[in-house]
Amino acid sequence: MSIAESGEFGLIGRIIARLGDASSALLGPGDDAAVVAAPDGRVVASTDVLVEGRHFRRDWCSAADVGHRAAGANLADIAAMGAAPTALLVALSAPTDLEVAWAEDLAGGLAAEAALVGASVVGGDLSAGPTLTIAVTALGDLRGRPPVVRTGAQPGDVLALAGRTGWAAAGYAILSRGFRTPKVFVEAYRRPQVPYAAGTAAADAGATSMIDVSDGLLQDLGHIAEDSVVGIDVRKDTFEIPAQMRDAAGALGVDPYLWILAGGDDHALAATFPPGTALPPGFTVIGSVHEGTGVTVDRMPWQGGTGWDHFR
Amino acid sequence: MSIAESGEFGLIGRIIARLGDASSALLGPGDDAAVVAAPDGRVVASTDVLVEGRHFRRDWCSAADVGHRAAGANLADIAAMGAAPTALLVALSAPTDLEVAWAEDLAGGLAAEAALVGASVVGGDLSAGPTLTIAVTALGDLRGRPPVVRTGAQPGDVLALAGRTGWAAAGYAILSRGFRTPKVFVEAYRRPQVPYAAGTAAADAGATSMIDVSDGLLQDLGHIAEDSVVGIDVRKDTFEIPAQMRDAAGALGVDPYLWILAGGDDHALAATFPPGTALPPGFTVIGSVHEGTGVTVDRMPWQGGTGWDHFR
Repeated sequence: MSIAESGEFGLIGRIIARLGDASSALLGPGDDAAVVAAPDGRVVASTDVLVEGRHFRRDWCSAADVGHRAAGANLADIAAMGAAPTALLVALSAPTDLEVAWAEDLAGGLAAEAALVGASVVGGDLSAGPTLTIAVTALGDLRGRPPVVRTGAQPGDVLALAGRTGWAAAGYAILSRGFRTPKVFVEAYRRPQVPYAAGTAAADAGATSMIDVSDGLLQDLGHIAEDSVVGIDVRKDTFEIPAQMRDAAGALGVDPYLWILAGGDDHALAATFPPGTALPPGFTVIGSVHEGTGVTVDRMPWQGGTGWDHFR
Repeated sequence: MSIAESGEFGLIGRIIARLGDASSALLGPGDDAAVVAAPDGRVVASTDVLVEGRHFRRDWCSAADVGHRAAGANLADIAAMGAAPTALLVALSAPTDLEVAWAEDLAGGLAAEAALVGASVVGGDLSAGPTLTIAVTALGDLRGRPPVVRTGAQPGDVLALAGRTGWAAAGYAILSRGFRTPKVFVEAYRRPQVPYAAGTAAADAGATSMIDVSDGLLQDLGHIAEDSVVGIDVRKDTFEIPAQMRDAAGALGVDPYLWILAGGDDHALAATFPPGTALPPGFTVIGSVHEGTGVTVDRMPWQGGTGWDHFR
């Protein structure tokens, strides 16, 4: 059955049924707006849009995968502020011949990823449109913490990373060449494993800055360097390249450091901490902050490409 | 200059420059997420998506108009809960040949409409995509009020309306036939005049239910009837049809009540109040709530079409 056959209101009912318990909401889907608790007295909010053919392909990812990816990309932004995600809102624009089952499975994936952090899908909107487009807004609560912003890195700080980089980029490269294995990388591309708990832990440990690595490590560190007016140096030898990644990179004729340093979509969290900080679980040191500007790799400019511009 | 030529980060800078003062935000655009005050301890949130060719046409509306419409549609949802809007987040997906000036003017329109209620654009996302698509999320604060939901209408309640209906539908009909006048209706379609202040005023006056009339009065009242398990009757003679609307309808061979009762996009607020309530400024009585089900016009089923299904 297509969404044109089910109609807008039929589809809304089916989707709400797949969202599960909107327990994080004071008022969930079905009214003009949702009501979400913001006990801190502040709410953290971020939006990301995924466009078919640009951010996902239906022949590469199931609907549930796309739901996990869309939710993960947004929830990671909330975690990168040191906040706990509370709710998602989803605006779906879809061709009228889209199968209802696809939309239902998308909702299921969104809800399942949100449930990993105790959040839920509290509202949304549906429209017909020629291009399948999913815009997700995530909300979060700071629980009394100051937000961890991009402007606070200081010379002398330690640079640390929680989560993986390069895995989704490897999966993307594998799928782009028409392969489906090694499955670990393809799965990493389909459903990023976001280190959500590391976000609030970093805030509690006194992180001076933090960012969600969505476009590529060096590019995203560039935002911290620019906004904090510091230089950042990444040490290559701090990254252990898994044998499987080295093999896959060799088979595809790619430098695996290109994936690790410039690949997006894993949604690792990069943070800076004052020297001597006991790093929270999940974080490992990957470099340092110094006086200056820009991002270097082993104190040299990186020549291998830095990341993703969504218009180029 | 196209957005491909400016690049993603160049465009972000130009857009932020057009958003004006994000004074409603504790932390505005430029980080992983925004931080917005939620002094009430709850946040109201709603999302709407506008798709080119479906919700707007670039030859009918300027970029600033589209910004006003997109913001208004979302801010009206917040007002319909009895809340005061605080912030907007905007996800824009656009073809790479879109002119930078169009995106800048869109941002200007969004910011100007938000400023009408003291809100601002606090964050967003940009992506390339084949279809120009604008997804807006609005946030609001209840200031200690209970939310006004769709489930509270009671038999005996008065049905009242703030704002206009039929004006945007008249403008749409005029533009659809290739005309550009009368300008009052075309302008009403391009920039709805949302009765924002009526939302919080209705909540303070004890409204038992409220809805943003976006898809058509009878269809939207149908949601209140269904969710409150009541019948709603609308009295046609409570609507005074302006002479200009009567003339335009005559010229196009349309029943003007079709515009008034089934036309969307003006974002009037329909609310129910206990009998004897002194209605807040801007509201006029248009009908009543009774035991039963469904929506009638002068106690009879309406035969003229009821509104908009976004997939049909």
